[in-house]
Amino acid sequence: MFQNTKDSKTKLSELGEFGLIDHLTQFFKVKHTSTVKSIGDDAAVLNHDKHSVVTTDLLVEGVHFDLAYMPLKHLGYKAVMVNLSDVYAMNAQAEQITVSIACSNRFTVEALEELYSGITTAAELYNIDVVGGDTTSAIKGLTISITAIGQAKAEDITYRSGAKPNDLLVVSGDLGGAFLGLKVLQRENEVFKVNPNAQPDLEKYTYIVERQLKPEARKDIVELLMALEVKPTSMIDISDGLSSEVMHLCKHSKVGANVFEDKLPLDPMSISTCEEFELDSTTVVLNGGEDYELLFTVDQSDFDKIKANPNLTVIGHMTEQSEGIHLISRMNTKIPIKARGWNGMQEED
Amino acid sequence: MFQNTKDSKTKLSELGEFGLIDHLTQFFKVKHTSTVKSIGDDAAVLNHDKHSVVTTDLLVEGVHFDLAYMPLKHLGYKAVMVNLSDVYAMNAQAEQITVSIACSNRFTVEALEELYSGITTAAELYNIDVVGGDTTSAIKGLTISITAIGQAKAEDITYRSGAKPNDLLVVSGDLGGAFLGLKVLQRENEVFKVNPNAQPDLEKYTYIVERQLKPEARKDIVELLMALEVKPTSMIDISDGLSSEVMHLCKHSKVGANVFEDKLPLDPMSISTCEEFELDSTTVVLNGGEDYELLFTVDQSDFDKIKANPNLTVIGHMTEQSEGIHLISRMNTKIPIKARGWNGMQEED
Repeated sequence: MFQNTKDSKTKLSELGEFGLIDHLTQFFKVKHTSTVKSIGDDAAVLNHDKHSVVTTDLLVEGVHFDLAYMPLKHLGYKAVMVNLSDVYAMNAQAEQITVSIACSNRFTVEALEELYSGITTAAELYNIDVVGGDTTSAIKGLTISITAIGQAKAEDITYRSGAKPNDLLVVSGDLGGAFLGLKVLQRENEVFKVNPNAQPDLEKYTYIVERQLKPEARKDIVELLMALEVKPTSMIDISDGLSSEVMHLCKHSKVGANVFEDKLPLDPMSISTCEEFELDSTTVVLNGGEDYELLFTVDQSDFDKIKANPNLTVIGHMTEQSEGIHLISRMNTKIPIKARGWNGMQEED
Repeated sequence: MFQNTKDSKTKLSELGEFGLIDHLTQFFKVKHTSTVKSIGDDAAVLNHDKHSVVTTDLLVEGVHFDLAYMPLKHLGYKAVMVNLSDVYAMNAQAEQITVSIACSNRFTVEALEELYSGITTAAELYNIDVVGGDTTSAIKGLTISITAIGQAKAEDITYRSGAKPNDLLVVSGDLGGAFLGLKVLQRENEVFKVNPNAQPDLEKYTYIVERQLKPEARKDIVELLMALEVKPTSMIDISDGLSSEVMHLCKHSKVGANVFEDKLPLDPMSISTCEEFELDSTTVVLNGGEDYELLFTVDQSDFDKIKANPNLTVIGHMTEQSEGIHLISRMNTKIPIKARGWNGMQEED
């Protein structure tokens, strides 16, 4: 899982720019009738009969990922997830992506094939057409830019701005795992640097390591909400950590929020890893990022529809804006929530 | 024109990622009714009633541009043009772009403001909404990723694949200027490195330097063709040089082509600069890139509609595929056309 063991090393220059694009995209098959023209012209042509949703994200080596512990195949998969997650956060279904790659000549054709195999796997599993992109050289490092495009009926689209006081605040899945997986990987990488013969002992951390290396965007939650006939009043995906996302919803919806510490969903492995690293689990949930879960608000009248679902946890409710944004601790004290986010925790500034 | 003389130097970290996006995009105004939701949510929401056209391009410092002679404002403008050009090459009108930037901390807030002022100017002049994007740090250099989105009626869209034998091959504007402008800028930069007090003498090269630094995508040609009631049978934009683009049209349309050397449109300044640099002007037109003119084919019955237009030049015609792709020289000899393109001329391999 952690090493690219392919032996052959074909230099990128042997294929050339055009050869490389053809080579990497030859296996992409068009799945959607809305994809009128895919790769191979000046632009892709799409025919969306509903509203289109468009989002774009850049992933930069050394800032968003470290190839010391992120295999290229996983990176490709994750780069797609990061973008699809933004489409799902609009309550829309993603249908197309474009993929642009800039990389230095330290990458071989085989390395880019690994990267694209992750992209292709993600596209297959999430029913996405890869309709365009660009491949170019760079002086240094690897940069991936993906644009994801989806569609939804106008009346189904959820914005950050629709939450009202007394709406319930709901989160999918569990939180904090991706950040803790990163901590485990970083520790193993330090061990490896000191002793390259050491075998990483990651088996007992499988779930959280996968949360970091192979996150899943919550396409299923969009489908679930549709099936439950619940339209969120607002929605956002959790990329930077719960606190920052709650603040975004509150800011755009002009409301406040109470988040209950004892309701925050953590996997047992996340809890035990927090203990091992001597980290406060609530802090990890609030400030750790990259979980790519969906955070949304629903009207109280929808509570019965969601309350029994194991994928969904009500973690609080919205309030009047003047009441502010607070964590209600297990001790029943109100602690103001401040945005720190994932970058802050990494101390990248 | 060639120096960023702003004195104030605000570090990017003083604004932070979110502050920076807000800061740089605060002046973008929505112009199109098809832009339902612009910057500020997980994704933009668009409502295209026709087919959508989507294209994306990456520009990488040290590969696609050199800040030694490319002012940031011009770079922002050009980055937009490169993408719009691909939309126009589909015979569509561009309406939205997303802009993602990765840059190292050697760039100040003021530098990014310069870059975005070029992007904003381009968006204003070409009637484009900037609907999303991403701003992130990088370990080294500056990378710009733009996705452009347009729309057109299904029946108006032109692909690379529609040319037929005997169709006329037509190009807009004149060719070779952008490459020659680059040669002039590179020469002045070498002089500057030897003698930093030397003042660049660019006045007599204004046209070709502008072709390099401030290219214009041919929105006007798409409008002109619509007004003339001419639908090209195939179309591509000239980013890599005429020879490479002719070959793309021939390959996708399964035809051959004869291009007549004495019909190639060159500006007088391009001709005199070729003489000065002892370059063959035909080679420059065939292999120099970045002119961002449109190359297209029309049925012979449309000849009367386009023949008198000073913006359009018939440079040849398509043939049966078996006849191959040739330049018919002034001496009436047939010379096979091979793709080299702009990168080849730069010897970047």
